[in-house]
This record gives sequence, structure tokens and C-alpha cells, in this order.
Amino acid sequence: MTSLWISDVRPWGGPAVDLHVADGVFVATPSGPEAQVVRGGGRIALPAMVDAHAHLDKTSWGKPYRPHSAGGTLADLIDNERSHRSDLGPVRERAGALLDRHIERGVLHIRSHVDVDPAIGLDSVTGVLAAAAERAGRVTVEVVAFPQSGVLTRPGTAELMADAVDAGAQLIGGLDPAGFDGDPIRHLDTVFGIAADKQVGLDIHLHDRGTLGAWQIERIVERTKALGLAGKVTIAHCYALSTVDDVRQGSLIELLASADIALTTTVPGTTPQLPLARLAAAGVRVGLGHDGVRDLWSPYGTGDLLDKALMLAVTSGYRQDADIARTVRIATEGGAGVLRLPDYGLEPGCRANLVLLPAESLVEAVTQRPLDRTVIAGGVVL
Amino acid sequence: MTSLWISDVRPWGGPAVDLHVADGVFVATPSGPEAQVVRGGGRIALPAMVDAHAHLDKTSWGKPYRPHSAGGTLADLIDNERSHRSDLGPVRERAGALLDRHIERGVLHIRSHVDVDPAIGLDSVTGVLAAAAERAGRVTVEVVAFPQSGVLTRPGTAELMADAVDAGAQLIGGLDPAGFDGDPIRHLDTVFGIAADKQVGLDIHLHDRGTLGAWQIERIVERTKALGLAGKVTIAHCYALSTVDDVRQGSLIELLASADIALTTTVPGTTPQLPLARLAAAGVRVGLGHDGVRDLWSPYGTGDLLDKALMLAVTSGYRQDADIARTVRIATEGGAGVLRLPDYGLEPGCRANLVLLPAESLVEAVTQRPLDRTVIAGGVVL
Repeated sequence: MTSLWISDVRPWGGPAVDLHVADGVFVATPSGPEAQVVRGGGRIALPAMVDAHAHLDKTSWGKPYRPHSAGGTLADLIDNERSHRSDLGPVRERAGALLDRHIERGVLHIRSHVDVDPAIGLDSVTGVLAAAAERAGRVTVEVVAFPQSGVLTRPGTAELMADAVDAGAQLIGGLDPAGFDGDPIRHLDTVFGIAADKQVGLDIHLHDRGTLGAWQIERIVERTKALGLAGKVTIAHCYALSTVDDVRQGSLIELLASADIALTTTVPGTTPQLPLARLAAAGVRVGLGHDGVRDLWSPYGTGDLLDKALMLAVTSGYRQDADIARTVRIATEGGAGVLRLPDYGLEPGCRANLVLLPAESLVEAVTQRPLDRTVIAGGVVL
Repeated sequence: MTSLWISDVRPWGGPAVDLHVADGVFVATPSGPEAQVVRGGGRIALPAMVDAHAHLDKTSWGKPYRPHSAGGTLADLIDNERSHRSDLGPVRERAGALLDRHIERGVLHIRSHVDVDPAIGLDSVTGVLAAAAERAGRVTVEVVAFPQSGVLTRPGTAELMADAVDAGAQLIGGLDPAGFDGDPIRHLDTVFGIAADKQVGLDIHLHDRGTLGAWQIERIVERTKALGLAGKVTIAHCYALSTVDDVRQGSLIELLASADIALTTTVPGTTPQLPLARLAAAGVRVGLGHDGVRDLWSPYGTGDLLDKALMLAVTSGYRQDADIARTVRIATEGGAGVLRLPDYGLEPGCRANLVLLPAESLVEAVTQRPLDRTVIAGGVVL
């Protein structure tokens, strides 16, 4: 029986304790002398970070820099990707390089949207799953079969999304049913139909702002309830929530809570941030995602979810410690709630997936994002 | 005669060249064998970064983390600082610690606002000047005598600002003449009066948004022209410019250009960014500042101006290489233009203040902000 003693660490930046691990799981007290010791030295201990919205198949991580080649519209970006994605090399290799960075930074659970369309078929899905399998025990990857090029506007995609589930994808995706795919009712009926048929969850990209996005949120809530999918649906981005008036925002949050629909944010640069305090008060699960990293969409990204937490804190206008600490909670247990990760946390019985950070407080962890981290997965020091 | 050969570097990310330095200045060709060689290894060379808006006296850099203790309004923040600033220890030491970080990251020119008020008198000004003097040859610091606690609302401050110039401050500051100090005409007449009398420039904080801020910009332009101060006035933040309609924005930019008034941004988290392309087209000088770093106002900041460049690029919605590269230009020669730094750049005749960065492009320099930098000041490798 392998065992580990992690001395003098401060869970969530609180008082110093010792943590004990047996067979990959935290235990309240060790049953005997421990095989290995990690000296925490007063560092903060956090459960492993959770990237709740990634696009592992798109990254060029580990490849040479390439200039941005797309125009400014969503259609331009999608067309540019379809033209150039084959230049990037095998998905398995690129996704693997980014997963290695995630692991190094303490991001050990990832939900990745992965493109599915008639041109690439399931190649990207199998590539990401292979990269994840190579890193089993160190990182978990949940795949969303993502119709990046449209469902209705790209015939054959719906069938491929169903096939992707058979190939190992855990969720069905969607993309701007009105703003991109052009027929919100038929788009939603299609993706909800596949999810209900395959008995899997849904994670729908919704960039549509204002009243158009709000109307689609209501349609998503209706279908979630009608199909008994409460607790299994996520809306990604959900810019509509921060671009409608205060009263409408309140009623949308009530609706989301009533269907236990989760949200993920990847911290938009030029759209107001989600109303995190109001969402928390209503009990809506919220996760943080890194979105694309150095891909054909944008050159940004480091693979470090604390960089995103900082961006979220700054662009939310946070100054108070409790507000800034909220971004760390969202980057960890928030995402774990969205992914419904079992045995997540630092308590006895939880799987010993954690990261040690040299910082005095959660605020300092976010503002300084120290790189000297110790990452432990299943009780094994990586 | 000291001399330096910097081989195989790529100025601004362009083609590789060798740079030659004699007596602290770039020369086109070496006059003899060079005393020291720096192997660039293909790294990017940038002229030293310029932090055009700092508050060196406020930082707690190098001190233990302390929880944020202020309420949410501007008045709360100012009162909180007045209550707690004496707990932080000597300005000279704290400002020096932050300057050391700046130097390490390649930020070698700083314009710092420094608080002046009847309670602290000129102590913070002399503290910052002492910290800068200790680092002469490595970093230059220009001090703005800054009425953080008000001019009209804090009697005695105007006289102290004049005294600060005699003590070594190079500019007179100002703060929200309407929104904070309560009497825009009298505030502006006072600070412009001191500047004209002392024959120095002005750098005025203007957070007031929308039409209130726009109206004050017009009053600043009037006074700049009337007193012959064109080219010597800076407006910091200038949120009004991005919170008025497009037509008013255009006329304000024309006015700023007509009086050669510069702007600085510290990249607000929740206000739209300055219209950088439109300002550049009109020939308005714009610099980038880090603002406060780990102080009683906020816990943010790293002292690395590339972190601010990234924030500026993301929150400006930039994806194109040329747009993202613009943020590097603003962090370097933009700030140099605001400070009117003589002999700035990488050309022969310029002072050899530069930083070498391991990145393939300016975009990669901003998105990844590599820490492994070589910093050279006056031809001396630091």
C-alpha cells in the first residue's frame, strides 16, 4: 500500500495542517509509517484545478509561432480554421503537449470540446482521447462532441456527434443555435435529441448576446426540463446573461437554477463578466475554462488556469479578498461541480489530486501566480 | 572606453542583426575589438520598457501580504490609505524594492505619481527620489507631485506641490477636478498655475467618465493652449474618451492632438479601453502604465509591463498580430514619447537600454511574457 505524508500545508490558504494519503486517497490518519514525505513548508494546498472549457484539438502548443491568419467575423474564424487545421500536425501530439503543460501547472481535470464535422469525422475526438489515455492517472479529460462548423449548416454532423459518443465522447455540444446555425429550434431539438437518445449531457456554446441569447437560454431550460436532463446541461460563455437588463438577468438566473443548468466562462475580453455573486447566491454551478490556447482562433493562452483567474478577477472589478478568492474557488471546486467530479476535494475520502503553491493567500496566488508548484495526482508526486 | 557586442538579436522581432555599443550608446560599427560579448541567440531585442504611470510610493512590494481593507468608493480608498500608509514602512525601501523588480524585467524608465499632502508633506517625494538615486544609471524615475487627497479639499496641498518641484519633482499632478475635488475650474486653474509658474509639465488623473469627463478634457485643452504648455501635458486614464459617443470621441481626439496632449492608460478592468488605433491615426502620444502594485488600493501587479500589455491586448479584443504588437510599441516607444525621453531606441546614437526576450514574435512576447530576460542599461549587462 503506497502512502504519502504531506506536511505543513495550508488548505485554501487557511491554517497549516498535515495531509495523509493512502492508496491515492486522503485519509484522516495514517495507518502506519508513510512511504514518502512531501514537505509543504507552509505552502497553500488546493485541490487540482479544473479547466471546464478547453479546445485541446485546436492548440498549436509546442509548435512554432504562426501569424494570425483569420478575418474578424465568427464565420471568418471558422473558415480559416477549416483551411489551415491540417497544417498543424496530429491532434494527439498537440493535445498531449498542452495536457503536459496543464499537468505541470496543476490543472488535472479538463472538459474539452472537440470538433466533429464531415471533413475530419471523428479523428480529432480519437486524437484527444488517445492523448488523455497516454496520461491516465495524471489527468482526466471529458470530451464534448462539438459542432464547430454547424449542425444544420453542415449536414452529416448530427450523425457524427452520435457516433462520437460511441467512440468515447461524454457529452454533446452545440453552437449559437440562432446566431451561427440559423435555426435555433431545429438546432436545439437536434442536439437535445441526440443527448436524450444517448443518455449523455449537453454543453452548448452560446455567444449570442442580449435578448437573442436570453430567448435561447429560455428554450434550453424548457428542453432540459422536458427531457429530464436537469443537472446534465451546461451553457458555455452565456454572454446574454451580462448583456440584458437587471430584471431579465434575475429571471434568467432563476430559470437556470430551476433546471440545474451549469455555466462556464472563459473570461471574455470585451464583454461584461458573468454576475458571479448573483449566480452563487442562486446556487448555479459555474466553472472556469481556458478556452483555446495558441490556436487558429487567437494566439493567447498559457495553459495555466491561474492566469485566467487573474483575468476574471481584474475584469470583474474585484478588490476585496473574498471576491478574488472566489475566482480560485471557480477554478477548482466550481469546475468540479460542473463536471460532477466524484471524490473531489482535500477531505478524507477524496482522491489526492492537489497542487502546492508558494503564496501567502489565495489573493497572492491569483495576483502573482507562482510557477514553483508541486503537483500530486492520485497521491503520486509528479 | 567600454564596449559591447550584442550578437544575433532581432530588434522588434524582425531579422537578426548584431548591435554594437560604445560608451553606453549604440554605434553603427565598432571602432575596435569589443570588451564584452552578449550572445543573443536569436532573441528579440526591445528598447527598455517605459512605465508611464506608476505609484512607487504606495507599493508594499517586498512586504508580507496584507488583506484589502478599503471600502468600495474612491473616497473610501483614499481614506483607507491615509489611515494605513504609515504601517507600510519607509517609502525609500518599498519603492526601491519595486524598482529592482522593474529593472529585472526590463522596465528602465518610470514616471511615478507620488503623493503630496499636508500630513506627509514631501516625505514620499524625497523617498522615491532617494530610491531612484540609489539606482542611477540603471533606471530613470520622473516624479509627478500628486494631490491624491485633493487640492481644494486639502488646503496646503497646492503650496506643497510647488515645493515638490523645488525638491526634484518634474511635473505637477491633478485628480478628477470635478468628480473628486469638487470645483473643476478652480482645481485646473490652480494646478495649471503652478505648472506655468514653475515651468514644468502636468499629468492629470481623470477618471470622470462620459460627458463630465469630456467637458473637463475640453477645459484642459483650453488651458494647455492658453499657457503655451502644448506638448507638456498628459491626461492619465481618460476614461471619458471611451465612454462618450463616437462623434464626441472624434472631436475630443482632434482637440487632444491640437494641443499635443499625451494620454496614459493603466488598462482598466471594467471600462472600455482607449481607442488606440484612432489615437495613433491622430498622432496622439499614448503610454502604458502599471499603476499601483500591491498597495492599499489593490493587491494586483507584478511590476512587469508585459503583463499589462497582455491585459491591454485581451481587453481591446485584439487577435491580429499588428494589433497585439501595438501594445508592445505602447509599452516601449509610446511611453518614451510621453516622457519625451531623449536618445531612446535601438538606433545608433541611442542610449543602450534594452531587454532581450526569448520569443519568436512580439505576439509571443506578449502572450507568454518569458521571464528569462537579459537587461542592459547604458551598455552594462545587469
